[in-house]
Amino acid sequence: MRLLFIGDIVGRAGRLALTDTLPDLRRAWRLDCVVVNGENAAGGFGITEAIFGDFLAAGADCVTLGNHAFDQREALSFITHQPRLVRPANFPPGAPGRGAALIETAAGARVLVINLMGRLFMDALDDPFAVGEREIAACPLGEACDAAIVDFHAEATSEKQGFAHFVDGRVSLVVGTHTHVPTADYQILPQGTAYQSDAGMTGDYDSVIGMEKEEPLRRFVTKLPGNRLEPAAGPATLCGLAVETDARGHAVKVAPVRIGGRLSQAGPEFWEGS
Amino acid sequence: MRLLFIGDIVGRAGRLALTDTLPDLRRAWRLDCVVVNGENAAGGFGITEAIFGDFLAAGADCVTLGNHAFDQREALSFITHQPRLVRPANFPPGAPGRGAALIETAAGARVLVINLMGRLFMDALDDPFAVGEREIAACPLGEACDAAIVDFHAEATSEKQGFAHFVDGRVSLVVGTHTHVPTADYQILPQGTAYQSDAGMTGDYDSVIGMEKEEPLRRFVTKLPGNRLEPAAGPATLCGLAVETDARGHAVKVAPVRIGGRLSQAGPEFWEGS
Amino acid sequence: MRLLFIGDIVGRAGRLALTDTLPDLRRAWRLDCVVVNGENAAGGFGITEAIFGDFLAAGADCVTLGNHAFDQREALSFITHQPRLVRPANFPPGAPGRGAALIETAAGARVLVINLMGRLFMDALDDPFAVGEREIAACPLGEACDAAIVDFHAEATSEKQGFAHFVDGRVSLVVGTHTHVPTADYQILPQGTAYQSDAGMTGDYDSVIGMEKEEPLRRFVTKLPGNRLEPAAGPATLCGLAVETDARGHAVKVAPVRIGGRLSQAGPEFWEGS
Amino acid sequence: MRLLFIGDIVGRAGRLALTDTLPDLRRAWRLDCVVVNGENAAGGFGITEAIFGDFLAAGADCVTLGNHAFDQREALSFITHQPRLVRPANFPPGAPGRGAALIETAAGARVLVINLMGRLFMDALDDPFAVGEREIAACPLGEACDAAIVDFHAEATSEKQGFAHFVDGRVSLVVGTHTHVPTADYQILPQGTAYQSDAGMTGDYDSVIGMEKEEPLRRFVTKLPGNRLEPAAGPATLCGLAVETDARGHAVKVAPVRIGGRLSQAGPEFWEGS
Ligand SMILES: [Fe+2]
Ligand SMILES: [Fe+2]
Ligand SMILES: [Fe+2]
Ligand SMILES: [Fe+2]
Ligand SMILES: [Fe+2]
Ligand SMILES: [Fe+2]
Ligand SMILES: [Fe+2]
Ligand SMILES: [Fe+2]
Repeated sequence: MRLLFIGDIVGRAGRLALTDTLPDLRRAWRLDCVVVNGENAAGGFGITEAIFGDFLAAGADCVTLGNHAFDQREALSFITHQPRLVRPANFPPGAPGRGAALIETAAGARVLVINLMGRLFMDALDDPFAVGEREIAACPLGEACDAAIVDFHAEATSEKQGFAHFVDGRVSLVVGTHTHVPTADYQILPQGTAYQSDAGMTGDYDSVIGMEKEEPLRRFVTKLPGNRLEPAAGPATLCGLAVETDARGHAVKVAPVRIGGRLSQAGPEFWEGS
Repeated sequence: MRLLFIGDIVGRAGRLALTDTLPDLRRAWRLDCVVVNGENAAGGFGITEAIFGDFLAAGADCVTLGNHAFDQREALSFITHQPRLVRPANFPPGAPGRGAALIETAAGARVLVINLMGRLFMDALDDPFAVGEREIAACPLGEACDAAIVDFHAEATSEKQGFAHFVDGRVSLVVGTHTHVPTADYQILPQGTAYQSDAGMTGDYDSVIGMEKEEPLRRFVTKLPGNRLEPAAGPATLCGLAVETDARGHAVKVAPVRIGGRLSQAGPEFWEGS
Repeated sequence: MRLLFIGDIVGRAGRLALTDTLPDLRRAWRLDCVVVNGENAAGGFGITEAIFGDFLAAGADCVTLGNHAFDQREALSFITHQPRLVRPANFPPGAPGRGAALIETAAGARVLVINLMGRLFMDALDDPFAVGEREIAACPLGEACDAAIVDFHAEATSEKQGFAHFVDGRVSLVVGTHTHVPTADYQILPQGTAYQSDAGMTGDYDSVIGMEKEEPLRRFVTKLPGNRLEPAAGPATLCGLAVETDARGHAVKVAPVRIGGRLSQAGPEFWEGS
Repeated sequence: MRLLFIGDIVGRAGRLALTDTLPDLRRAWRLDCVVVNGENAAGGFGITEAIFGDFLAAGADCVTLGNHAFDQREALSFITHQPRLVRPANFPPGAPGRGAALIETAAGARVLVINLMGRLFMDALDDPFAVGEREIAACPLGEACDAAIVDFHAEATSEKQGFAHFVDGRVSLVVGTHTHVPTADYQILPQGTAYQSDAGMTGDYDSVIGMEKEEPLRRFVTKLPGNRLEPAAGPATLCGLAVETDARGHAVKVAPVRIGGRLSQAGPEFWEGS
């Protein structure tokens, strides 16, 4: 199966990069399933139902979130009737929405998507290792699903790598989000799980993690409050990860995706011209 | 000028990757200056004088450090007579050693090397923005030095990017260290400073940030103390950044370096066969 | 019922204050149940079985712990056969020992003791609100127990107060530990739970949280590693909280206890000469 | 000299406790100098010029701040012409306002007031140890001032105690603020500095650190965003510390002050009927 994961869409520039690019990618790469992290889609903070709809229309099968999941309060309600919008599964029981989705592809395959949030240097949700274990056990790879993607939204590389090894061989992909910078450590772990510490944001990389740089810079230097943070408006780089899985749901190919904007360009050569 | 920066050397596997590879690189790429982060060189924690000597012998001109600078206590004393060993400049005044070094290359050029530590999610040293400003002002690019490299040792991408924009055009390179994962956001910022959020460690990437994965994994899952952390012993990937500067000390070319081990391989094509 | 809670015993000075004083207090105040936090009893770090035995011999009915619970590795094993040694209940499932104990007093009353750890500014265990809820529901006050004591081991006053209001009326006492400083906010909350943000340590208050002050001070000033931390050896103040409960297990009287050492002295006047 | 320090005034309830009580205290205790922490005076967040004026009118000689110093943006400007409003001295150079004030009492004595912010578990300002050292050296006790008060606004007890020992004998009082809970560890340190880890807030103690408890509690339990935080409106306890100094500026007497509201009442008996 051909899976594409796209990292945190930041603001208008990020949304445009997604909606302009994804329809073509979907076709060109004959993608089976596309997952997009949307926690910063609305002005950098959260997501609205309209934006969520745009993402589906552009070709996303599922949208994941993170610590900014509910910055737009409407998400607290519309998430309840949008099964393809997934917030971290380790919110306390009773949180609106769900932490996992089982997507059926056009070809009839089933892709499990799990969103988890790390706890190092972040507000602590429930244990992502225990919750991840439970979610995976509830829908075993190769039995109840044909592929499984974990968006592990976290700050610390140690926690991301720790989790990936913890589930190695039991999901198709563990990909980090939240730092808004793509890492270059994509690999297939020993038991068959594709991994990259961070997918990187889809946003303008002449910025401070996607936001206009003047205000963050001023805060670092002066430690004084100032103006609101605004998403940077320059051309965005769409960042993500392309993964091909085998019949057991293990990753057999993995490649970074970086399209447009300031970063070096990258894509899955193994799918080009295929 | 041709500059090479190599990220945190972790344990024996990392040291071997460096000493096996650097002499050839130095020759093949006709490097003018090589800077290596050595904060995890001794069993993952700090650096000894013997190891420091090995790094110089292998072709390093300067070794930078970070939060693990003095994990090996001998570093508190031998750093005082090793001007090429640089610890974060934003330690409080009076700390042993120095936070910057001015390296003279074989061709007679002068390269300023500054080490700084971020404060987000880390034990707070002095303000890295103010200290960085002061160090740069004391040795202006294009006047008192021909190139300038800042190793910004930090956890948060926001702080790294903020600092890089803060000094854009005033140093040749700002490269992050500490997360032990190479990022894929290398670029030349608008005013001429090359940037990458993290150089990545030089160590075994089948690990948790360079350490054998069993113990960190056990700690994440059980929250119980256990055994010592040991560096992973598999083949290491040497990770870093190659930068070419112009007469004013601005970056004109930048490329990631990843050699050996599990990660995808990369290098400065612009220097190949040159 | 008459309950006494005593805060973190730090090192030898703290242990002596406990063993010298508690037998008399137990008699003089005709105490029904005594709970002691012992996480720093062994040289400031953890607890040994010998020390635990000394505490029981001196008159403790139950010993609670915290983030230092297993600093002495022997605690990982002896806790399994010591039902009166209680570690935070919100360790992940499978941790050795237990997070709650039901103590039977000499008069045949049952006292539930729960230990929980906060998550703000601390390594994150499981949700203390959810786990606390579960422990209380499993042994309801006035039904399955006659009094209930929660040692909420945490850094932030907001989390301590939040938890106390969360269980107000459902336990007899919520008392904080971990900051090693007694607070002066003891009160009975609207629904009948006695509360104090921190019991304070039992240790030498001419110190930095119970440890010899030179080394911590040096670290604050120089940010350099140095010598081991050693418990301060001056006369300790035994710090704690005295609570009297009614037939339903609600608190009707509460008073701070501070005996010996440098702090102002305090005790439950309502029990004096009784 | 007779000094009174009053901790973080929280919202309307806290302001009323101050303005209703202070004029009488000032007279009854024949106070020479009154310092009030006002960082939460305006609805829990920051301070306005009108409120600052009310505090002076009620008898405050100086108002200190903390991490909420500039939550009300007008403080960024009016602080520049209000020499009795003091923000943490360890803001980066160039911050509006000042970090210390020299107050002349009615009797012609000079009281130095310094505000500092800790860095453990807080956004890092400059080194409070170094900045504190500098401020004290600039106005030595017994030479350039007759008494000196440090409001050390910080989370961690270790940092507060460390700082107090660092300046012991060189200031009259180090008193902590920020946790919004009074501690019961007041004492005179070996070299003559009065100390208490936290003065406590002046606010309603049936709350979560002064704010209506429902919303904080909901956030702890659900981890979901909700409504604004509002100051609790019940009767406030005025919390602080009373200190008497000798001719050299050393503390000779110290006592906690708790007036009104839910907490146990306390005051300087040594000044009663004097
Ligand atoms: Fe994000
Ligand atoms: Fe995030
Ligand atoms: Fe490192
Ligand atoms: Fe580091
Ligand atoms: Fe403790
Ligand atoms: Fe503790
Ligand atoms: Fe405050
Ligand atoms: Fe504060």
